[in-house]
Amino acid sequence: MSTKYKKIQPRLTIVGTGPGDADLVTVKGVQAITSADVILYDTRVNTELLKYAPVGAKKIFIGKRSGSNAYTQEQVNALVVDLAFSHGHVVSLKAGDPFVLESGYEEASYADVFNIETEIVPGLSNSIAVAGLQRLPVVHKGISDSFWVISGTAHNDLLSADIKLAARSSATVVILSGLHKLEEIVSIYKKLGKHDLPVAIIQDGSLPTENIALGTVATIAGISREEKIGAPAIIVIGEVVKLHPLFSFTLAENKHLLN
Amino acid sequence: MSTKYKKIQPRLTIVGTGPGDADLVTVKGVQAITSADVILYDTRVNTELLKYAPVGAKKIFIGKRSGSNAYTQEQVNALVVDLAFSHGHVVSLKAGDPFVLESGYEEASYADVFNIETEIVPGLSNSIAVAGLQRLPVVHKGISDSFWVISGTAHNDLLSADIKLAARSSATVVILSGLHKLEEIVSIYKKLGKHDLPVAIIQDGSLPTENIALGTVATIAGISREEKIGAPAIIVIGEVVKLHPLFSFTLAENKHLLN
Repeated sequence: MSTKYKKIQPRLTIVGTGPGDADLVTVKGVQAITSADVILYDTRVNTELLKYAPVGAKKIFIGKRSGSNAYTQEQVNALVVDLAFSHGHVVSLKAGDPFVLESGYEEASYADVFNIETEIVPGLSNSIAVAGLQRLPVVHKGISDSFWVISGTAHNDLLSADIKLAARSSATVVILSGLHKLEEIVSIYKKLGKHDLPVAIIQDGSLPTENIALGTVATIAGISREEKIGAPAIIVIGEVVKLHPLFSFTLAENKHLLN
Repeated sequence: MSTKYKKIQPRLTIVGTGPGDADLVTVKGVQAITSADVILYDTRVNTELLKYAPVGAKKIFIGKRSGSNAYTQEQVNALVVDLAFSHGHVVSLKAGDPFVLESGYEEASYADVFNIETEIVPGLSNSIAVAGLQRLPVVHKGISDSFWVISGTAHNDLLSADIKLAARSSATVVILSGLHKLEEIVSIYKKLGKHDLPVAIIQDGSLPTENIALGTVATIAGISREEKIGAPAIIVIGEVVKLHPLFSFTLAENKHLLN
């Protein structure tokens, strides 16, 4: 290592920032930001969190998830390591939890190669937290013993094969990043005759723009369009959705959407 | 309402406190505690969090999960409502997330009957956070698109039927409160010929007493005994467990436990 790095102690903390509301980050996450030399964040991280950064900390926007300006994961990994050696404590902010459809594992593993001390600070995963904020328990005594969280976009933007098995189970199924596959998802349930199974779609959970569509396998696509639900959103499918305070109301309102 | 309650604004905040480390509570959770008139907590909540309580706030320990001194859920619900009307802001602390195998939904619904304003503050669920703290991603590109979280003790302490279907799936399976059913769980996987599937058991995740056992369906029961793993613990079953930094090491060490 060259002499100019002499006093720098390279270190990486990967922080999950939760669904969006800046106050839904953990105390440990805030502590990491307050001691950061460099902070990396992307479009899905609430920039309000940068208020905790020390004066003089470098803040680097690593771009959108896709598009011409996006960094590849390899570029981000290399950037993290370079910055840790040149600046010290790098804090990499992730939406949700760093290990659920985020690149926390990749960054930590790459930093390991360089013997960089790495700490993981978990964050609230949308899968559970966004449902809970809407008073939807993903498990509930007598209704569902389990919940199955599935990525809507597995490989090459194909729907995960796991959804077909999940649709046959009695688990509450929570699909992340799957809104653009909604028609395909409900068709899987329809083939199994599960037209009346309740479904909730929650957009922008925890943010002022939060919006929910409630319906059934038969009606949810229409309701979601009427409510103008957009990404990012989670899809919750299962009997527990009936526990939502507005569910029975929605059911009565949307009889015209049954098909 | 009688005049002595005149200035009291009944209010309930149900806060998930996460896996155990007091710094893994959210900022919003801390804000709730600092404005509490009454705080309810049970054995699984880290009492360090009570440091955030205002001087003079009433702190009520609602006992163990089971045993002769335990409150029933109905008693807790009634207590919450009584205290909200007599004292104002009641903060009910829950281990993990209030809606995952906790009684958040029940308390919120009961408070609704009395028109008590209720807020939910999600917490880190052990299912994701405890695995992540051990560098185990529950989903990982090319290995697993989904994870299935199952309660180990569904009804009358019977193993959830969902585990049998889960064992057939390619999802990462995370079992909460299921350590005392470990032999039964691995026997389900053995019947399917999945002896080599990796398994991790993590006790006291995020706490100084954290301990992990790593093995396969064939070896994990023996390793867990040797490591003296006790409850509370989560069981993670799936190919992602191979990503744990110590997995291959453990595999070589425990060949004698293969059966």
